Parts: sequence; C-alpha cells; structure tokens
Amino acid sequence: MTEVVDRSDSSTTSKTASTSASAAIVGAAGTPAVDVAALGEQLLGKWAAIRHQARDLAGQPELHKIEGQHHTEHRARVSNQLQFLVDHRAVHRAFPAHLGGGDDHGGNIAGFEELVVADPSLQIKAGVQWGLFGSAVMHLGTDEHHRQWLPGIMDMTIPGCFAMTETGHGSDVASIATTASYDTDSQEFVLHTPFRAAWKDYIGNAAIDGLAAVVFAQLITQGVNHGVHAFYVELRDPVSKEFRPGIGGEDDGIKGGLNGIDNGRLHFTNVRVPRANLLNRYGNVAADGTYTSSIQSPGRRFFTMLGTLVQGRVSLDGAAVAASKLALKAAIQYASERRQFNASSSTDEEVLLDYQRHQKRLFTRLATTYAGSFAHEELLQKFDDVFSGAHDTDEDRQDLETLAAALKPLSTWHALDTLQECREACGGAGFLIENRFASLRADLDVYATFEGDNTVLLQLVAKRLLGDYAKEFRNVDFGVLARFVVGQATGAAIHRTGLRQVAQFVADNGSVQKAAIALRDEAGQRALLTDRVETMVAEMATALKGSNKLSQAQGAALFNQHQNELIDAAQAHAELLQWEAFTAALTKVKDPGTAQVLTWLRDLFGLSLIEKNLSWYLMNGRLSMQRGRTVGDYINRLLVKIRPHALDLVDAFGYGEEHVRSAIATGAEKVRQDEARAYFRNQRANGQAPVDEKVLIARAAGARTA
Amino acid sequence: MTEVVDRSDSSTTSKTASTSASAAIVGAAGTPAVDVAALGEQLLGKWAAIRHQARDLAGQPELHKIEGQHHTEHRARVSNQLQFLVDHRAVHRAFPAHLGGGDDHGGNIAGFEELVVADPSLQIKAGVQWGLFGSAVMHLGTDEHHRQWLPGIMDMTIPGCFAMTETGHGSDVASIATTASYDTDSQEFVLHTPFRAAWKDYIGNAAIDGLAAVVFAQLITQGVNHGVHAFYVELRDPVSKEFRPGIGGEDDGIKGGLNGIDNGRLHFTNVRVPRANLLNRYGNVAADGTYTSSIQSPGRRFFTMLGTLVQGRVSLDGAAVAASKLALKAAIQYASERRQFNASSSTDEEVLLDYQRHQKRLFTRLATTYAGSFAHEELLQKFDDVFSGAHDTDEDRQDLETLAAALKPLSTWHALDTLQECREACGGAGFLIENRFASLRADLDVYATFEGDNTVLLQLVAKRLLGDYAKEFRNVDFGVLARFVVGQATGAAIHRTGLRQVAQFVADNGSVQKAAIALRDEAGQRALLTDRVETMVAEMATALKGSNKLSQAQGAALFNQHQNELIDAAQAHAELLQWEAFTAALTKVKDPGTAQVLTWLRDLFGLSLIEKNLSWYLMNGRLSMQRGRTVGDYINRLLVKIRPHALDLVDAFGYGEEHVRSAIATGAEKVRQDEARAYFRNQRANGQAPVDEKVLIARAAGARTA
Repeated sequence: MTEVVDRSDSSTTSKTASTSASAAIVGAAGTPAVDVAALGEQLLGKWAAIRHQARDLAGQPELHKIEGQHHTEHRARVSNQLQFLVDHRAVHRAFPAHLGGGDDHGGNIAGFEELVVADPSLQIKAGVQWGLFGSAVMHLGTDEHHRQWLPGIMDMTIPGCFAMTETGHGSDVASIATTASYDTDSQEFVLHTPFRAAWKDYIGNAAIDGLAAVVFAQLITQGVNHGVHAFYVELRDPVSKEFRPGIGGEDDGIKGGLNGIDNGRLHFTNVRVPRANLLNRYGNVAADGTYTSSIQSPGRRFFTMLGTLVQGRVSLDGAAVAASKLALKAAIQYASERRQFNASSSTDEEVLLDYQRHQKRLFTRLATTYAGSFAHEELLQKFDDVFSGAHDTDEDRQDLETLAAALKPLSTWHALDTLQECREACGGAGFLIENRFASLRADLDVYATFEGDNTVLLQLVAKRLLGDYAKEFRNVDFGVLARFVVGQATGAAIHRTGLRQVAQFVADNGSVQKAAIALRDEAGQRALLTDRVETMVAEMATALKGSNKLSQAQGAALFNQHQNELIDAAQAHAELLQWEAFTAALTKVKDPGTAQVLTWLRDLFGLSLIEKNLSWYLMNGRLSMQRGRTVGDYINRLLVKIRPHALDLVDAFGYGEEHVRSAIATGAEKVRQDEARAYFRNQRANGQAPVDEKVLIARAAGARTA
Repeated sequence: MTEVVDRSDSSTTSKTASTSASAAIVGAAGTPAVDVAALGEQLLGKWAAIRHQARDLAGQPELHKIEGQHHTEHRARVSNQLQFLVDHRAVHRAFPAHLGGGDDHGGNIAGFEELVVADPSLQIKAGVQWGLFGSAVMHLGTDEHHRQWLPGIMDMTIPGCFAMTETGHGSDVASIATTASYDTDSQEFVLHTPFRAAWKDYIGNAAIDGLAAVVFAQLITQGVNHGVHAFYVELRDPVSKEFRPGIGGEDDGIKGGLNGIDNGRLHFTNVRVPRANLLNRYGNVAADGTYTSSIQSPGRRFFTMLGTLVQGRVSLDGAAVAASKLALKAAIQYASERRQFNASSSTDEEVLLDYQRHQKRLFTRLATTYAGSFAHEELLQKFDDVFSGAHDTDEDRQDLETLAAALKPLSTWHALDTLQECREACGGAGFLIENRFASLRADLDVYATFEGDNTVLLQLVAKRLLGDYAKEFRNVDFGVLARFVVGQATGAAIHRTGLRQVAQFVADNGSVQKAAIALRDEAGQRALLTDRVETMVAEMATALKGSNKLSQAQGAALFNQHQNELIDAAQAHAELLQWEAFTAALTKVKDPGTAQVLTWLRDLFGLSLIEKNLSWYLMNGRLSMQRGRTVGDYINRLLVKIRPHALDLVDAFGYGEEHVRSAIATGAEKVRQDEARAYFRNQRANGQAPVDEKVLIARAAGARTA
C-alpha cells in the first residue's frame, strides 16, 4: 500500500495533486509535471505546420458532420465540402507542382487525415477523389494523362471513382473478373462485366457524383491475359448525369456509417474505351495489340501498380489514431469531473477517474494511442521517403507496404475498441450523439476492412516475416534454428521499420530470464516482446517447412492449420513496432517531468502487451509463475502514477472544442457537480436538510443500547 | 494431422460432407448429424408456443425497422407499432387476469424479447411502456392504482415514462436528488428538481409521447427523508400535449441507436401531486404525514422496490442472445457460400468457412451464443418462479437478481462483439445496412449500460460472492481458507443458479492437476472453471479481510485497489454459470448425433474460456506449461469437427428470412458464385479462355531449359 488512489478533487486545477495536500503544487518536489505544449508539438510531428492548417480548417462549422441528417442531404453536403477544400487549397499537396500541386506526399497525408475530426465521410470522400482516383491517374498514368485529367480531378470538375473492388472479389484483387479486351480493328479496349459477381461494388462516388472512373480490369490482348490494369473511363454525361451507353449501376444504399459518401455498384456491357485511356505507366498496348511492360514479372508488375494503394492505408492509420485521441479527450475529461457513489466519505462522491477499473479501461487505451501516434509518424516519414523519391528502392517500398499492413489493422481496431470503451465509460451520456462516440464509431467501423481487410493484411505481414526469415537462413536447418531461437534470443534492438532482419537477433546473446527480472525496464520489455516475435516466426517456419514440396492442396491445408498462429505472430510483430516507436519517441523528450510521465505510459503499454499474452510467456518459460503474478500489480501501480497526469496527456493531443465537439467534454459536468455539491453543502450549513431515516434508526438503536 | 479442413463444396446440401466423398451422406457412418428441428424446439425452451407466436408477429413487415428513416418518423412509426401490439394482444401477458392480462410473467418476457428481431426500438419502447412504466404501477402500486391506470397503460391511452435516472445519477439510484416533500396542509406531495444534475434524463417516452410518468424521488415527510419512492405523475395534457404547469423538459435528440424511441429529460418545479399518487405498496404516508412501511429496513425496502427492475435485465439478456443468433445465422450462411483466394487448386477458390481463422472467429462465438441461450432459459425460469409466486422467498429474489446481474453483462457485451465480428467477417458487404449487422449493433450498443451498467452489475455479483463466502466461513480464518481452496478444490458441481454456496466446494476433494489431464472431459473443464472462481473469491476475501475495521476512506481505498480482480471474479462466475447451463442442456438432448455435435460445441466454449484465462491457470499451477500448450491445438481440432454442422447449428435458431432480413443470408451469394464458376468452367471447356501471361512465361522458361 505504498501508493493509494488519489481521492482529492480531480478538477483540472488538481491534476498534480497527490495524497499529501502539501504536494498539490504543479511540479512540486517528487511530482513530475507534463510540459503539455512541448509534448503537443512532438505529437504533431514533422508536418506540424500542415496539421495546424488542417485543424484550423477542420474546426470550421462548414465542414462538420450534421448528426441525423438524411443520407441524401449528407451526401450533397459532403460534395459541397470537397469544393470548399478545393477553394481553400487544402488537398493538392501531393500533385505535381507544374499542375498546381506541391509534390509533398507526407504533408498531403498529414493534412488529409486531420479531416476525420470534421467528418469521417469528408475524409474518405476526399480520399476517394484525390487519394484513390486522382492518385491512380497520377501514379499509373503518364504525362498526357496527367495533362488531360489531373486539373479537372484536382478542382472537382471531374468527380471520379476508383473502381477496383467487385462484389465477388475484395481482398483478392488479382482475381477480379472485369475484362478489357483489346480490339485491334478499332484500336479500342472493350470493357465488359461477365457476370453479376464482377460488378464493381462499394465504389465511392459511383452512386451519384462520379463522372469518370479508373476501372481495374484484366487486360487481354492477342489472346493473352496480362493481368489487372487500370483504365480511365467516362461514366456519366457531365450535363445530364446519365450513365454512358453500356454502363449501369446501383446505389449501395445506407451503410453502417460514412453516409456522406455515395457508394454504389457499376457494370459494363461491351463498353468501348480508347486505347490511350489505358493508364500505361507500367504496361502498354501498341496499336497492333502488342503488349509491353518495363516490368517483366507479371506478379511484380501487379504489386507495383497496387503499391499506390498504400497511401490509403497510411492515412487510415493516422485517422484512426486521431479518432482515438478525440474519444479519450472526451472520456477522460468527463471522468475527471463526473462523480458517482460515495464510497470514501458520507458527503462527497468519488470522481470516476479515481476508480481502478475506470483507470484501467481508459489509461491502457491512452497508452496504446500514444504508441499508435508515434508509430504512425514513423510510417508517414517512411511513406514520404518512398514517394518523394528520397529512399525508394524496391526494398524501401516493400518495407513501407509491410509496415502499413502491420500498423493499419492495429490502429483501426484500436479506434473502434477505444470509441466503444469511452462510450461505455460515459454511460447513457456516451450513447447520445451529442457526445459523438457512437457517431465516430459508426463511421470508422469500415476502416477495419477497407483498403485491405485487417485479417488479410496481417497475413501479408506474416508471409513477409516468414520470407525474411527464410532468406536469412536459406542454408540452415530450420529445426535447429527454432531451438536456437527459443533458447537464446534476447536483448536485441529490433530494426525499427524492421522486417528485413527479424532473424538477426538469433545472433545476439543474453538470458531472457535475466531480462524478465527487470520487467519494468525498457530492456526487459524489449527482450520479452522481441523474443516472442522471433520465437513465433521461427516456430512457424519450422511448422511450415517443406510446404513447397507438398501438392498445392496439401500445402494450402498445412498453411491453414497454422493460420491463427500466423496472424498472431504478425500482430505481435506490429505491437513490437509500436512499442519501439514509443520508446524511440521518449529519447526526443527534453523536459524531465514529461519524460517521466511518458515513460510510465510506455511501461503501461509494454506491460499491457505482456499481460495480454502472459500465457505465452508462461508456457514458453519466459516468465516464471511468480514473476507473472507481478505484472497485474505493477500495471495497477502505473495507473495510480499516471492518474494525476491524465488530463495533461489528453490535452497534449491539441484538439480544441471545435474538434472534439462532445457536450460532456466542455466542463459542463463540473458545473453540474459543483452546483449539486453547493446545494447540499448549503442545506447542511443551514440545517435545512431532512434527516435520513437510516440515521434515525441508527440513533434509536444507539438509544436502546445506551 | 488426423483431421484436415473440409474443402468439399460447402453449400447447404453438403453440410455433412467429410474429406471422403463416400461419407457425403447425411448421417453416414462416423459422421454425426444434427436433428435441427428437435434442437430448435429445445432452444425455444419452456415458452416455445409464445415464442412462436411472437416470431410470427415479429416477422410482419408492419413491425420492421425502416433503415435510414429520419428519427422523427421512426419515433412515430414505433408509437404506431405499439398500438399494433395492443391490437394483437401481444403485450399483456404479465398483467393481472382480472384486468385482461394473463398473470404469466415468464411467458411475457419470452414473447417480449423476440420483438428485438423486428426492431430493437420496438422492443425497448414496449419495454418502457409495459415493462417499466406499467410494471412499476403494477408492482409498486396497490389495487386502486391498478384499477385507475393499468387499463389505460395496457391499451396505450396512457403512454408513460419510467422517470428514475437523472443526469447526475444513473447507477447509484439511491442518490437521486429529486424530492417529493409531503405538505400536510394540502395533503399533496411537492415534487421538485433542486438543480440541473437532478433533471430526469434518458427517459423513454419523455420527449414526445409520455402523458404520465412514474417518477422516483426522495420521499420527505415530517422532516425525515425515507428514501426513494415512486409517484404517479401526469406530465402532459392529453389533448394539447403541453406539459402541465411546473413541468419542463428537453429532447435527448439523436442517439447512437434506438432512434425509434423519444428519450428526453424532465424537470419539476414544485409540482403538486395528490397524496394518493404515491405508489404505496411498500411505503405509505398518512394524511397527517406519518410514514409507515411493511419493510422496516430502509435499505431492504429500497432494494425491494428496485426489484421490479430485474425483468428489464432478464429481457435484455434474452434479446442480446437473439441478436447474436441473427448475426451468426447471416455470417455463417454467407461464409459457407462466399469464396475468396484459390489456395488449394488453380480453379476453385476456398469457401470462407474453411479458413481456420474464420472458423475461430465465428464458431467460438457460436458456442458462446448457445451457452448464453441455455443460461437465459434458466434465468427466465428462475424469474418466472419468483414472479409467479412459486418460489419467491427473499433468498429466491436475491438469487434471481444476482443471476440477472451476472448474465446480462456477458450476453450484452457478447452481442456487440458478435455483431461486430460478423460484420467484419462479411467484409464490405457486412457494412451495408441491407445486411443489418451495423444496424443491430448500433441499436444494441446501449444494452451494455442501461438497466444497470455492466461494470456496476458485475461488482454487485462480486459483492454477493464475497458475502456468501463470508457467511459460510464466518468463524474461520480467511488466510487458512484461501490456501485450502487453492490446494484442494476441484471436481465439484456448482449449484446451477448458484451463488449461495460458492464455498461448498472447499469441502470437496480431488486433484486439479489430475482433472487437467482430462482437459477435454466435462469433469475436467468443470474442475478448472469452478476452481478459478473459488480461488479468486477466496483470495479476494483474504485481501479485503478486515476492511470493515478500517475507516470508511481506508476501506474504500482497499476495495478500490482490488476492483479489477473483483470484476474479473464476477465474470468468471458468470461464465461458469453459462457453462453449467450448456452442460445441463446436453443431458436433455435425445438424438445421439445432436448430442455429439453439441458436446463439441460445449467443449469449444469451455476450452475457449480456459484459453482466455490461460495465464491464470498457469500462474496458479492449475495447468502445466505442456498442458497449456495443448489447449490451442485442441480448440483448432474442435473447429474442424464443428465445421460440417455449422449451418445446422444456426438453422436450429429457427429464424426465417422474415426475421434475419440480411441480403447476404438469402443464398444470393451462392447464386453469384455458381454463375461465376460456370462462366469460367464453360470458357475452359470451349477453349475461349485467354492464356495467362504467367503461364506463357513458365512455358517459355520450360522451352529454354528443355
């Protein structure tokens, strides 16, 4: 009982209060204080200036979601908001400078993802127009395409679609069934939908607004299918808004959220498209039907073309972190004011944030949000390195794609979990749309499955981990290695974006058991988290060894028998990346008080991961039973340490009321609580309070026994 | 590798197919078959006939939610639907026979909870009118109250509110601040809202429809506060619909879901209510202001009056299970038809339900839903026993309340988790409202915090467990006991509704280690699950020992330091109750094939619980490291065994398309898949298929090396 829960007044003025009244001074001896402004700037990261601009825009009422608006009106509103963004030059940073853009890829995403705080529909519809449709023309097309279409795309005279997904194929893009068959006679492609499952589906801008589309289809010429390519297709007459001949579609109707976007279906019946409309940067068809490509391998060509999709994943990762921040700001502010049940005194009720369970619910998610925020900044810098051309080798691109595939699932699931936990932590008030949790949660729901289903993405990560492992140990017997890893690996610093060299740690030395003694130390946490990833990958490699010598069916069955473990290993890897990003960010904190508090938060993140996977550490002999039992206690002590700084930690996110827009995060609850407490205090002082029947009974009992 | 994933065609006709084609006969040797009809009847339970009637009603389009409807229109629609229910005599079963009811409490809830499949707003608004408002008049009022108001409540001429919760107090009802002060001169109560936090809030029917309300307030007479009592108050003029003088309110506006209900706020400024409007079954004020009650203890009186709330929790438990069934029916049907990625052959893609991860995601939740369904039936029978008067001792009522407080949190959280997992398992299609997951999830969100916040309810359960434990061992040293429990307890059959005698198992004998060897056996699972509850309770009791000798603040701090463990212990207890209910249901299955499949499903439930808490079993020496590592493998084998029966298991829920109303659960996906496969088959047969570029490259490479 060295630390007890802080039960003092927890309003903003007492955020550093300890159990000793004399310590209730900001930065008083022994009580670290957070430098909120400096921490805030660090969180904003490399593109802080652009984020500030974007937040200024996102705070304007014109861009805010109107809750309860009918979806047809909401769609119209968001369409107009896109024009507002154009007018404010907020969305062209990634486009070529010679067309009025900024050639700034990282800054573009940084600004773009902040739009989620205004309305996730706005973020995603803008993403469809400029991040997917416009990006496809830019990255898959060539100069003439840029000159012809990018200006109209940039200024919204050509609202367009990114028509890739079909009803029958989402995650498996290579298997889409729409065909684009080259007709040498007319020098046109014939775009065709062979059956219902090949309709394009869930396509943003398709139901109403889209005048054109980048349509993905199997390119067939001279009897050969060269795989999925992208074609620029005019969908509707710009004046009548009627579909062009041969094109039809349907409205996807109402969705679980994001109803400001007109998602829909498209189908094509022998629609003729000029040969020049093939976006031919990576593959071309000559007038005579001859196919050529600078990339010989069809597989590599496919993945190169799909590489443009990565920016969608990067920006969803950032937007998910932003939404988590909004939710935690609202829920923690409310919990610091709201009182319920008077356990410790007969007059004042407890502040919710002083309850252990409430702390665990909110602070563990706060810690994960910080980890996600720092990890996202690293992802964004990696993205900028690749897309700016600063570091864009094949390996860099693969690292970027794997990193995005690792982080996007975790952050999007985390956002849904955090929004829900915050909504529940605010009780019935949390369910009111005026407090926004339910609205944001509904809108962000689909982030878990679009731009790559989270479960599929984690399997991509797992395959990369296995591939790297195999490359590293091409000539080594896997069985021996796995045992070696299990026995030896520890204490290694994982390469931060770091998938290339998972196996390098095998060469390092040290004792996991020894590291575990220092469960609370950075090195100890790193050893445990790293060891788990390495061991899981090595075990997987052993289990799957020889699968390439089996028949296709047998190999698939063997993989399938380990699918759960593969996904778990990928998740462990992604969590380690988050932990490393958080740890790296600590080294950049100058203020000692901030560093202390953030270190507690990082420890809470690390230990929460270890607690979540405690059975693994115990079963694999990495933690003793006795040591394992200390994890929960240590987490509880961290919660108490973090408690006085919780408001600072959410204030550092830097969102104002114009961004949070949650009625219960305005201080209104404190006003209500103060009014109620003053009423009762006054009543007691004036002797006006009725006597409680229980008190009367107790008095009577006292009189009888006296 | 004794069992491999079934990769045969998984359409409904092949649900019993195994890897051997010769076994593809329903009920063939070695392949158990489920008797879907018989299992369906068992799931319907004691009130099967009423459930059938209610489902017939719930299948009618008049009662269905119209997705995307504006909340004002939705509210009007649901109000009309309530009249429809009255006209069809669907909602009066619990009311007194002499007033046209049926005196059938269990049947009433059984029918009522089925309404969730039509529209959760309908279920909850009906619950407000008859389950809360009407019930309060019935249970807290006396004959004259019944005669005066129940007919109008029953036939909807008096739409009304249950005005208990205030902005400032939800879970802590005893602390609500609205006052009802008796004025002897006028023989009236003066109802008053002293400050903003005391406004009634989140009150169904308050924004628009409510003409009257049962208002809960602190009853003050002769200078004494006798605690919370219920008053019948006319809110609005029935003709003008204007608030009566002194009454005001606000609309709560749009919510995260349930927007067919007009929740709102109410406040009272010295509103005079006749003395006779006190619902005085448990407490009365004479004309001269003298207070009398048949229940001497104010605390017991309060809990008796609040006891009427239990039926809300019971029906939410049932409705949550029903929603989980709808979601699983849709997602499992779709997963049995949907194909994605062709891992095992070059032509046919895999059915989603053959992927290990997909099985784990859906089947573990299917198992929990079965457990929840059987546990709910026991809860409902217990409820009927108490409310029918068959078994309504104080102890019975306490057991009922504790059982409801244990099960409602688990089933409501489970429903949210299941709806979300099913939505994600269906990808983008899952997000479309036409498939209903997102709609149901939004509506059920608040089930986790209303009628008792789940976290608060679990703490009530924990306190009951501790109380029972203390009663049992009043004269025994806790420390000794805890060690005894840890060392000895096992193999005991927990009393099924069973909270009274948690400690009885301490007296039983056996070895947990031995039981663990039989991890797959019923007895082994029971031993592990029971032992965990007992040990956690005993440890908690030890930790909290002597807290009653501390100051109030110190005692509260000590409790708070163990709040997480308290809640975890309560959850473990509730899970054990579900497991026992599932196990008890197995004994009632007559068909051997059904019994076999359900036993696998029960094992999956039990082992999933053990896997979830594996670290506890390892840290506490209940499972060895080696044994622990087998849990995951055994779960994976169970998934494969259950796979061929998955469709039967969801079909047994007995919901037709008029209930499920999910576009992807109609067989439409199978039609699309069949069409696509026929297209490609035909193309191959006709030699019309273009050659894949990859194949050309492979051929060329072959030619070079040849």
